[in-house]
Amino acid sequence: MKKYKILLVIADGLGDRQVKQLGNKTPLEAADKPNIKELLKSSFVGLMDPIAPGIVAGSDTSHLAIFGLDPHIYYRGRGALEALGAGGEVYQGDVAFRGNFATVDQELNVTDRRAGRTIDEGNELVKELNSRIERIKGVKVRFYKGTEHRVAVVLSGSGLSDKISDTDPHEVGKKVLDSKPLDSSIEAKRTSEIVNELTKKIYEVLSASEYNKKRIEKGLPPANIVLLRGASTYLELPKIHDYAHLSAAAVSATALIKGVCKAIGMHVYTPEGATGGLDTNYDAKAEKTAQLLKEDKYNFVFLHIKATDAASHDGKAEEKVKAIEKIDRAIGKILDIAGSEYVILFTGDHATPVELKEHSGDPVPVLLYVPENIISDNLLDFNEREARKGSLRIRGLDVINLLLSYSNRASKYGA
Amino acid sequence: MKKYKILLVIADGLGDRQVKQLGNKTPLEAADKPNIKELLKSSFVGLMDPIAPGIVAGSDTSHLAIFGLDPHIYYRGRGALEALGAGGEVYQGDVAFRGNFATVDQELNVTDRRAGRTIDEGNELVKELNSRIERIKGVKVRFYKGTEHRVAVVLSGSGLSDKISDTDPHEVGKKVLDSKPLDSSIEAKRTSEIVNELTKKIYEVLSASEYNKKRIEKGLPPANIVLLRGASTYLELPKIHDYAHLSAAAVSATALIKGVCKAIGMHVYTPEGATGGLDTNYDAKAEKTAQLLKEDKYNFVFLHIKATDAASHDGKAEEKVKAIEKIDRAIGKILDIAGSEYVILFTGDHATPVELKEHSGDPVPVLLYVPENIISDNLLDFNEREARKGSLRIRGLDVINLLLSYSNRASKYGA
Repeated sequence: MKKYKILLVIADGLGDRQVKQLGNKTPLEAADKPNIKELLKSSFVGLMDPIAPGIVAGSDTSHLAIFGLDPHIYYRGRGALEALGAGGEVYQGDVAFRGNFATVDQELNVTDRRAGRTIDEGNELVKELNSRIERIKGVKVRFYKGTEHRVAVVLSGSGLSDKISDTDPHEVGKKVLDSKPLDSSIEAKRTSEIVNELTKKIYEVLSASEYNKKRIEKGLPPANIVLLRGASTYLELPKIHDYAHLSAAAVSATALIKGVCKAIGMHVYTPEGATGGLDTNYDAKAEKTAQLLKEDKYNFVFLHIKATDAASHDGKAEEKVKAIEKIDRAIGKILDIAGSEYVILFTGDHATPVELKEHSGDPVPVLLYVPENIISDNLLDFNEREARKGSLRIRGLDVINLLLSYSNRASKYGA
Repeated sequence: MKKYKILLVIADGLGDRQVKQLGNKTPLEAADKPNIKELLKSSFVGLMDPIAPGIVAGSDTSHLAIFGLDPHIYYRGRGALEALGAGGEVYQGDVAFRGNFATVDQELNVTDRRAGRTIDEGNELVKELNSRIERIKGVKVRFYKGTEHRVAVVLSGSGLSDKISDTDPHEVGKKVLDSKPLDSSIEAKRTSEIVNELTKKIYEVLSASEYNKKRIEKGLPPANIVLLRGASTYLELPKIHDYAHLSAAAVSATALIKGVCKAIGMHVYTPEGATGGLDTNYDAKAEKTAQLLKEDKYNFVFLHIKATDAASHDGKAEEKVKAIEKIDRAIGKILDIAGSEYVILFTGDHATPVELKEHSGDPVPVLLYVPENIISDNLLDFNEREARKGSLRIRGLDVINLLLSYSNRASKYGA
């Protein structure tokens, strides 16, 4: 039995509904997909519920499920995964936050929740925060710069809790909030006190920063606070090498997805020009993916593309069609470079219908290509409508098992 | 994103098999259903396993599942739910029984398990029982009249157990049984003693009743005992307002279903003429449902119709066809009055094939109407055969999640 390597391609928010602007086609129906159609000659096709029918999945919970880990057991919130993805060191029990550089007045009223959104001095400001604020009440504090105005903040130490409220008032004109404990534990009380002291220090450091003085001189809103939200405790996750015996690499530019991949022990690569947006460099991602597939040390390569979801959240149907066409070309490029002797699964992590602009609980089309000897569903196109005719009706948690089985890498369950 | 209100219509025991008497059609196939067919233009269709494939569901367990509560966790027997549905006050830890007015001779041998079935004096007899028997060993006892010969009995107090056997011998000619503890707990021993003392008192009160003397004069069997079965402890259930954020109303005339609905915090309405039988007033139920849908305070209205199940248990195929046709007209009437801007789910809680006359584990056809922008399955009829061609293959527990997702009321799971 030949053991195939595995290529998993996830187009974020791929699933959709019929779109008026596309003549009642879905973006997948409207898109030209010659390479994906070629795969259909030896593929199973069908529908996947990322979590369960009707459950509106986030990208983190759905990726965990697709990677074989039940989010009901392993998911503890987004913050710690995103911090990990942004390059943070995060360990079991650490509490992480999603943060925004923002602008406040002297009374700490928020005047701009994103400090103008583009913050060229972000790296320097994060460096200043890290050098001037090291520990509070014995707890280590680390800042990590994300994209645009985003900053991840990690508290490391014992006796911390994520059961505390945000300092982010989520609205302009309101004052930065005191973090409050959300249960009666000593840990929550202590963590909220640390966060409130941290907020004061952040303001002291940032409002005194020369970089912000220069921003004010240029007429830009100073990035003089970091608003914190979504406290989450980091739970050490099982590693894909252990539970699925896969040596896995991931290609992604999205902090949250990179965090999930790192947390389960994948090696994560972000090639030059990969942005996690509509302007991402598809060629660079395809080339990196192909190169990793060819490397002896990996037998599982995961390519994540965020553009489809980004287009959906913006309600841009045509952009979503274009993104799908570029993903099709990227798949073509990968196979051109690395050959097509792989088990390939292409799907979305959830639906983000462009007319809704939000995630939905709709099932997502899934395509499972096996190079030889399967009874192919022989569908002529791959989209939401055609997929109903296919033979697969699975859940996210089934994906890894299907990939292991059809790549001849599964262990028998029982005797 | 428009948030739709939700209409859930359950025809009890709807699912069926091909019926010889109907020319090998199922009752759903034989029935004329213009209003349901109209919904098919924008609907997903498929099959639902109320609990899991092959599990023969009761109406209580299946309704719990359809309302989003796993019966394996939340179901503790029928008695307490039925008592609640019959108007009883039931609290956490109370033990409830299903009871029958029955006729016994002086040695307590059962001569009629239903005391003639029609007991016009039922309300008066229950009132007498409640006034003459208040407490036994400190435990409060309450009787509630059900339909026909049925009486719910509730014991309230601490230290009770439902691990006790029935007093109902389930056969004519046998003596009323002593209730016995079914485990070695003090609670079970004490509860069985209370029940045995209760049985004696019931006989004393009823056999001395003037109403029974008059029944004997009229040549009717006296209702001189209440046979008890199915002891069940009431477990406080999560409320649908809390776990699904729905403000829910129910229209039903069936005590058990009303009990389930009350237990999860729905407001329950039984319009005049609604009987839970073949003679129910469909117009009154449709009008009430439409009125509730239009009320601001509800975003979820549940209509339950028992007639389909009643026809099946009696083996009456033609009656089941008629009941389905009346349900179709009721749905038409609801939409005429309240409009069709709702997410609508129509299904059965389980199959009750008329030729079996009993519940079965067959999957049940399900129809999910969404007013706009979905890729409709575009089936031309709704029945057991056509439903296999649809895109849904779900379990009862998925229903609430699908309804929340397609009504744009779901919360995202993860980020």
